[in-house]
This record gives sequence, C-alpha cells and structure tokens, in this order.
Amino acid sequence: MHVDYNEALAACEANYVPLSPLSFLRRTGKVFGHRTSLIQDDRRYTWAETHERCRRFAAALQGLGIGKGDTVAALLPNIIAMYEAHFAVPMLGAVLNGINIRLDAAAIAFILDHSESRVLLVDPEFAAVAKEAVSLMKGDAPTLITVVDEAAGFTERLGELEYEAFIAAAEPLSDIPLPDNEWDAIALGYTSGTTGNPKGVVTHHRGAYLNAVSNTMAWSLPASVTYLWTLPMFHCNGWCFPWTVAALGGTNVCLRRVDAQVIADLIREHGVTHFCGAPIVHSMISELPKETFEGLGRVVKGLVAGAPPPASVFERMRALGFEVTHVYGLTEVYGPAVVCTPQQEWADKPAAEQIELAGRQGVNYPLEEDVVVMDPDTMTEVPHDGETIGEVMFRGNIVMKGYLKNPEATTEAFKDGWFHSGDLAVVYPDGYLKIRDRSKDVIISGGENIASLEVEEALQAHPEVLVSAVVAMKHEKWGEVPAAYVQLRPGSRLEAAELKEFCKAHLPGFKVPKKFVIGPIPTTSTGKIQKFKLREKVID
Amino acid sequence: MHVDYNEALAACEANYVPLSPLSFLRRTGKVFGHRTSLIQDDRRYTWAETHERCRRFAAALQGLGIGKGDTVAALLPNIIAMYEAHFAVPMLGAVLNGINIRLDAAAIAFILDHSESRVLLVDPEFAAVAKEAVSLMKGDAPTLITVVDEAAGFTERLGELEYEAFIAAAEPLSDIPLPDNEWDAIALGYTSGTTGNPKGVVTHHRGAYLNAVSNTMAWSLPASVTYLWTLPMFHCNGWCFPWTVAALGGTNVCLRRVDAQVIADLIREHGVTHFCGAPIVHSMISELPKETFEGLGRVVKGLVAGAPPPASVFERMRALGFEVTHVYGLTEVYGPAVVCTPQQEWADKPAAEQIELAGRQGVNYPLEEDVVVMDPDTMTEVPHDGETIGEVMFRGNIVMKGYLKNPEATTEAFKDGWFHSGDLAVVYPDGYLKIRDRSKDVIISGGENIASLEVEEALQAHPEVLVSAVVAMKHEKWGEVPAAYVQLRPGSRLEAAELKEFCKAHLPGFKVPKKFVIGPIPTTSTGKIQKFKLREKVID
Repeated sequence: MHVDYNEALAACEANYVPLSPLSFLRRTGKVFGHRTSLIQDDRRYTWAETHERCRRFAAALQGLGIGKGDTVAALLPNIIAMYEAHFAVPMLGAVLNGINIRLDAAAIAFILDHSESRVLLVDPEFAAVAKEAVSLMKGDAPTLITVVDEAAGFTERLGELEYEAFIAAAEPLSDIPLPDNEWDAIALGYTSGTTGNPKGVVTHHRGAYLNAVSNTMAWSLPASVTYLWTLPMFHCNGWCFPWTVAALGGTNVCLRRVDAQVIADLIREHGVTHFCGAPIVHSMISELPKETFEGLGRVVKGLVAGAPPPASVFERMRALGFEVTHVYGLTEVYGPAVVCTPQQEWADKPAAEQIELAGRQGVNYPLEEDVVVMDPDTMTEVPHDGETIGEVMFRGNIVMKGYLKNPEATTEAFKDGWFHSGDLAVVYPDGYLKIRDRSKDVIISGGENIASLEVEEALQAHPEVLVSAVVAMKHEKWGEVPAAYVQLRPGSRLEAAELKEFCKAHLPGFKVPKKFVIGPIPTTSTGKIQKFKLREKVID
Repeated sequence: MHVDYNEALAACEANYVPLSPLSFLRRTGKVFGHRTSLIQDDRRYTWAETHERCRRFAAALQGLGIGKGDTVAALLPNIIAMYEAHFAVPMLGAVLNGINIRLDAAAIAFILDHSESRVLLVDPEFAAVAKEAVSLMKGDAPTLITVVDEAAGFTERLGELEYEAFIAAAEPLSDIPLPDNEWDAIALGYTSGTTGNPKGVVTHHRGAYLNAVSNTMAWSLPASVTYLWTLPMFHCNGWCFPWTVAALGGTNVCLRRVDAQVIADLIREHGVTHFCGAPIVHSMISELPKETFEGLGRVVKGLVAGAPPPASVFERMRALGFEVTHVYGLTEVYGPAVVCTPQQEWADKPAAEQIELAGRQGVNYPLEEDVVVMDPDTMTEVPHDGETIGEVMFRGNIVMKGYLKNPEATTEAFKDGWFHSGDLAVVYPDGYLKIRDRSKDVIISGGENIASLEVEEALQAHPEVLVSAVVAMKHEKWGEVPAAYVQLRPGSRLEAAELKEFCKAHLPGFKVPKKFVIGPIPTTSTGKIQKFKLREKVID
C-alpha cells in the first residue's frame, strides 16, 4: 500500500550529473572569469584563461593518445602546470599520478612502472633524477613533457616536448567533459608505505568533489579566498585544495620552494588569506621576526597536519596574527579527514588548555561519514576516556577506491567495512581523538612519511650490521627525525659517523637517521624488537 | 593498453555511503551535541537532544507501520515538530509532504489523496481546515497527530494522538538509518500551480544533501550560524535550510508567524545571524524604526527570493544593518538554485548601480550544475545582451526526480535534457540573469510582449508604493492591456491619477497600466502574490 516513488521518476540528463570537481572549473570559468586564478612570480591568469588553458592542455594530451584509464604522471613542484594538470588530466578520463619530488630514482622508476604512466610532466629542477628513473624502468618509458620555468632559471629540456609550446599547439576542447561515472578514478598517489613497495592509492571523482567541498565547510572558506601553495600538490592532490579553490573562484598563489621569507613576502604582496602545511612550514613561519606581518590588517589562517607543532609554535603563530587549525588524514582519505573544530567555549579556557585542546586531531571532516577509534580485534569503539588506545578507522565517500593492482592490501584495508588507518589514537570525553602513536613504523619528518623499515633495510645492507631498529625522535625543526639503534656483528668496530655516510649514499637526505646508538637491541622472548622501549629511550 | 582502474576496486561499506542529509544530524549530534539546536519560545534543545528526539519520533512512526515509500504529511508552521519531521520521516525511507498552511480544505484534501498520506501532523491553529479537508477526502483518512503548543495557546486535539506523548512513548531507534539509495525520495512538495491541480514535486536524498551544502557555500555560512525561521519549512523544505543548519551545527530559531516586531525581538534576543524570506518579509523588517537594531554589533544577513524588493527596501535594510542577497529558484530545484553572488568590483560603483546589479537573480548556485536561458524552440542560448528574452532552464543533481503520478508533466518538464522552469529571463554580458516574467504572466498587448515585472518595478520606484502586481486585462482593441494592483505605504493618500502620471514618465505608453486598483494585495503564505486571483478579479 506504499506509494511508488520511483515509478516514471528515473534519472535523466536534466536531473543527474556525475559528481566531479571538473564542474567547479566549468562554473567558476563562467561566474568568476575575470578574477585572478593563478599567480606564479610575475605570471598571472584569470579563471577564464585557466578554463581555456586546461581545455587546451587536455586536447594536447588527447593528441598524444591519452584517454580513459591512462596514467599521466607529474614530477612537479607547486607551479601553474601542476595546478592545470588537476583539471586537464581528469577531463580525458585519465588519472593524475603526482610524484613526490623528494623521492630517489629507484622509487620514481617503481612508481612509473607500476602506474604504467604514459606521460611524465617534469620540472627541469628534477631533470637528473627523472632521467635516471626512466633509465631504471622495466616497462615502456613515458613521453616526457618538460615544464620550463624561465623565471626560476630551470630551462633544461628532457626530450622534445615543452609544456607551453605543447599546449599552445592544441585546439582547446570545446567544453569540459565530465566522467562517465562519478566512481571513475581521478588520481593515483603512492604512499611511502611502512613495508615493501609503496602502494598506489586510487581516488575517484565523487570523493574528490566531496572533499573539495568539505574543505570549504571545515574552514568556513569565503569566496574571496587567496590560497598560498605551501602544501605540495603531489601530496594527496594538495588535500583536494586545487579543486576547493576552483569551487570558490579564489586565487592560487604558487610556490616552488618552502622558504619563510618568500612566504612572508607572498602573504603581504598578494593578500594571502589561507594556507596549509606540515608542522615544519608553521615552525619556519613562526620564527620570522614579529614585525614581518605588522599592519597586515587580517588574520591569516593555516591548517597543520600530522603531529601538532609544539605549543610554542602555536603561541608564536598567534602572536604573528595567524590562526592555525589542526587536521589529520592520510592519502587513503584524500588528505584531511579529521579536523580539530574549535568549540566556542574553548575561548574562555586558560591559554595552555586552549593549546592542548587545539592540539588534538579532532572530529570527522564535515562530509566524511565517520571516524571511529576501535579495537581492531573486536571492532568495538574504545571508551572516550582519553586513555584507551585503539586504531583510527574511517567510513564514507571520502575513502579511496583501493590500492592499484593490490587486491590483498585493499581487502585488508577495508576489512569489516571500515578503512583501517593503521594509526593509533585515544578519544576524549568530548569525542575528539588524539593520535597517540602513528602506525608504529612511520616517522613523520617535515610532513613526509618515512618508513622505518626502509631505513632499517638500508642499514642492514651494511656487512657489519647485525640488526637495526629505527624509530622517531622528536625534533624542533622537522617534528620527527629517524633515530637508529644498531647492533653490530661480533668483533665489529664500526662507528656512527661511518654508518651515517653509508646511509647518505643509499637514502635521500631526509631519511638519514639524525642519531645513531650502537649496542645490543632489546627484544622480547620471541625475538621481536620492542620499539616502544626504544622510543621511550630516545626521548630521554 | 590502459590501466584497469576498476579492477578489484568496487564500492564497499567502507568507501561508499548514500548521500543523505540525515548524515548531518549524525555528525552534529556527536560533534556539537552540547550546542543549542532549536529555540521556540521558552523551549530549547541541544543537538544531542534533537538527535535523540528525531530517532524517537522515527520509532514512533514505525510503530504506526510507517516505512519505505509511505507519505507523512505535515500541516505545521515553523515549530520544533516540523523541524524534527525533516529528519525523522526520511529515517524510515518515508517521504515528508509539507503542506502550505494557507491552503483551503479542498486543496489540502486533494494533496492528502494524491500523496496517499498515511499520517497528518497538524497544528491546532489549523484544526478547522484540517478536519474539513479530511472529510472531503476520497481515499483513506490519514492518522492524525496533533502538535499541541501550550505557549501559543493552541491546544485543541484532533484524534487521539498528541505529538509529545506520541514520541515519548517510543524507544528511540538505536542509530540513524540511511536510505538504501541516495536517489530515494525524501520529500514531496505541491506547487501552487496557477491553473488546474497542483503538481507533486518529488525530491531525493542526494539532491537535498547537495543543496543543503550548496547553501553553506553560496552564503559562506559559518559554523556559528543562528538561523531565524522567517521562511516556511513547508515551502521547498525551507529551501533545504533545516538540513543546512544541521550540517553546520548551528541554532534554529522557530517562528510561528511572520511579524516584524517579533522578528526584531528574536534577532536581538538570540543573536540571529541569518534568515531567508519573501520580499514582503524584508519589506516589513525595513519599515521598522531605525533604532530597532542599534548597538547590535553584527551584520544580519538575509536571502530574498523571487521578484527583488524595490531599491528603497534594499537601502533601508542596509541602513538598519542588514546585508541582503537575492536568490531565485523553484520547488523543482529544491528552492534557491540561482544566486546574485556579489562581485568585488561592485563595491566601487555608485549606490544606484550597485542596487541594480544586486537586484538581478544571478548565476547558478555553487553545486547546481548549470542554469541557462534558452529559446525553448531552438534550445540555443540567448545572447548575453540584457535584452533577449528566453526561458530559464536547469540541469544538475539539484533538480527534482519528477512529478508524482504525472509522467506526462515530468517528460514535458525534462524535454531535451533540461528542466524547463517556465520563467522568462534575460542574461547580461557578465552572465547574470534577470527574470523578466513567468511565461504566463506576460501581457500581450497589440502583439507586443509586456513583462509585468518591468511595469511593477516602475511602480515600485515610487516612494509611496509598498508592493504592486501587474496583470493582463482583456481589452477589445489591444487584446490585453496591463492592470495594476498597488498597495501603498501606511498613511499614504496617493491616488490612481498620480500613479498613472508617474508611470507615463517612466514607461513607454503601451506599457502604462490602463487600470489602477489601490488596496491590500492578497498573497500566499510564502508571500507570493496570487496573480491568478487578481486576474480573475480584474476580469469582473
């Protein structure tokens, strides 16, 4: 006796459109066509121009045969081409693979092979590593497109194609095509996993759309946002902010390299209102002289992720006129998925308590369905006592499709209907969570994940090393740095300095341990290394 | 040779959840549980309580056998129960049918029959018309639940069930259930069609979710929003604002009846920051003495829909400390779907031009895919010249499922892949549209089209005119000529002859009304002028 609310009420072209962040560029190109979209050194574009350039870029890629399901990789800093790639690549149904510019050639080669990237956009600053990576590949090399940056002095070309000439030669697509299905892949991002090879996180148009919008709500963003790119776009697609800024018709201020004085100058010159970054970015800004931002006449708002910076950083940032909010997330949840939303009554608390409250990771992002801290064995929620540790788990539309070509890891990650983050946390009585221990092997240094196993493997490649254990050590500048415990083979007289040199030869600089302790490593009766004991020790 | 980005990457419980505004209540009940959700006279609830009451209400309805596809009707003003119905009813997969409280018994009987409503929530203020409507029904009478309001003095009971006792007796659902499918119906709203029977507009969870979020973006809403219910919730579900306020964890201030002094008191007492309303609501507020809002210390923001109020209203509202934005929409697009987003450079224009710019309807809402003004015969866009008239058409996820049990009307409305609004507009070179008229409100005089809105704007430029309505009047020679109904400001003694002279000075001769009727103008409860009534009258 119910009413049939579906009879003759099917979806049609008029009332159903796949959710895609490409729609934001369509609308903003029309509504805010005359506003400034992008600033990089002395270059600037309007939204009408960005709309046109992205369609041109897409057409040029189409000319190379790029289409649905093709991977387009980018080894680029936060420059205009990287921003444009976030729209041009998905227009073709292709998938954007932003590669960490700090990786070494072997890691990049692995990613290019695994992702079957057909194109690699490359900045000449990374020409050497790119060339080496391509030479190390097992599969077909991608077509290289060099993004020359005259202003920054990076002009070396790899291969024949140069970005500006490449897109200039194409006739723009007449309109912005949307995906066939909102569940189609939009991007691929490799995590620096704790064990073995990195995993390729596949995200989709629906999730990117929703997290881009969720950013506007989490931060109550105004349409007039001027966003400074202190956060790498290769990192979870810049937390979806390329699409967020497009949705609002705001202005993007590009930034090749994180430098406190450059950041200060850009904030002043371009009226920057918002930025995101790792704790290190905030620390660097907080060290600037007090007069740096005098007379600015506005509060600049920042999001900081991962391990919260020390209280002193929060205090100095506030004194400089900044308002910093703490967020937490992972590549698998499109970047920020938990936010320390301030509550009105916090304003009445003592300063120290305010900083403690604001230093927690918080609650689920507005459009992330749920985050819960659970005992992974029983899948029951931990009590909200601020003490009981459980694993952070997510559920919702802002969770990845899964890991590329890795059904086992995907199944494992989605066990019991929740995404298992591998991060451990407690929950306070007000429902705010606080990370207690990043998944036990990961060290977060300057916003970058370092897998301790990778460092341990490098150490253990030394013939005189018997066993090693690498853990996080607090560091004022980088948040955390690796510290290595090394047990040598009997009779060895190897010294820390030599071990350091050995690591430098085999690891990128930021992964080289900053402290070496040589001696026996404590293990359990079954031979497992008790890292928590080492961590306690290293803090002393 | 493409990568299969779907292989072993299917949706599962962890990464797919149907979009539904019910998720907003889930999150806000948890994150902002202690904040005030609802205020009505001296009653107030927190979000934790609202979360619990809505689950209780849903359980009580379930006890009556209400489930998926059942219609629950509400003949209620903007009171707590009406707000709660927006969550409790959809929790069961049932459909909320908000009925206009100003309709007569025959119209209500038609709606109850057509919608097959199984429950009718009724406020004793409308007991008489409700009883008559039920007696006029052809089908089974719904179960009546009376919402007694002691504070307002409405205590008469219809039937056995009283709302508070009804929900108190139920054990709350343990969690908030989401729909099986985001395309499932959430609400049914009957349009006040000017001819024939009203049509039942069916909306879905996905669209309600997206428009609720779109409201936050269109208006850059802060989490601390305190929203005054000057707009009826039975009207397009209050433009989706019940769900918007829940998404933000803001505060709802209920309002049984639109009264300027009550509105002023509530704004001051509860720290109201935002409200929506028909032009008449804004006119009424604008007539309040200047000192009413002195020392308020904040700008109160309003959205006004439909025909823009005269410039004088905008000016007086600004002087009182209000910031009014113009929106436009229809029940078929979930309320507001076009917004006159202010552009930064408008601030530098002369005041008169600013008001003219802001008096247009604008551009598509942030998450509404597209709005275009087209020639309905050729389906090509009109030139952006501010002169060529076409029909406003929408496309996107915030467009209804269709009309209930009316496949012909649905097919007609979605012809050529666009929702045909029936409203006529021009588009300016900046892409902003301005409504010229409802197609049926156009007056055809001697073969010339006269937009009634243009004549009304001319009339309302007169300082003593409060509101006007211009309709077609039969004429032997010209076929039709304009006739004007004019409501003057209190105390005005303006006469028809003076008005005619005023029109002659501002309009071409054929557009000057041939008849003036001075007196109060009948409106619907949403403030819409009922032109069909005026048309009937003018024929006499």
